[in-house]
Amino acid sequence: MSDARSRPVTGHVPVLRLGDVLLVTLQGDLHDSTAQQLQQDLAETISRTGVRGVLIDISGVEIVDSFLGRVLAEIAAQAKLLAARTVVAGMRPAVAITLVELGLTLPGLSTALSTEAGMELLSQQAPVPRPGGPRQESA
Amino acid sequence: MSDARSRPVTGHVPVLRLGDVLLVTLQGDLHDSTAQQLQQDLAETISRTGVRGVLIDISGVEIVDSFLGRVLAEIAAQAKLLAARTVVAGMRPAVAITLVELGLTLPGLSTALSTEAGMELLSQQAPVPRPGGPRQESA
Repeated sequence: MSDARSRPVTGHVPVLRLGDVLLVTLQGDLHDSTAQQLQQDLAETISRTGVRGVLIDISGVEIVDSFLGRVLAEIAAQAKLLAARTVVAGMRPAVAITLVELGLTLPGLSTALSTEAGMELLSQQAPVPRPGGPRQESA
Repeated sequence: MSDARSRPVTGHVPVLRLGDVLLVTLQGDLHDSTAQQLQQDLAETISRTGVRGVLIDISGVEIVDSFLGRVLAEIAAQAKLLAARTVVAGMRPAVAITLVELGLTLPGLSTALSTEAGMELLSQQAPVPRPGGPRQESA
């Protein structure tokens, strides 16, 4: 029906490595099989490379639905199990509004306004913070 | 006819800023209007931000044609006019073979095997080397 739905990005979503971070740029619609492939690629790449962070840029995503929300949450959860943090960067204001309207507040996810801010966030923080463990600063 | 042709990535291709470099991840097929929009976005962003490098990751591109070759060459040419270097990263071996078969050796473009290698290349080199102008280092 919807024109937007008829143009899924099929095939691989590239996973780029930049130092200690994997960068994924989502564009347009995410197809079921593409999302599954991306989750698998990310898990394998985190495990193989031992990176500490995953940055998902969604500035190219204009339409969001519960499926995308679920995929992002699952990526973050699996990355956490592999000792990596996930930051979602570049969310459009309209997407944020839609997500909240859908009841998806992405509780397990950190966000940043830009890719650059996301990279900074990932470089500053420890991979997976332990609850109740304040940052120790030894001078 | 071809299934690959029927799934162009329409809309915006995100231009991400990472320090002094703009990063673009091409995925799947590039539509005419999308390519034009990307060239315009890149030119505007280089001019606005004054970045020194453009990194185009094409590891997600499986099928290449003369159109993509021309777009990459045009992006590099316009970036050079705006004092920025362009590096194309992550080209698949099959894509390289096809490009040469098409007679497109991308003479004005630097390439790197991975995004990380491309970032290193861009950070090492001066934005646009002037012929005969050695780097001056004042201590």
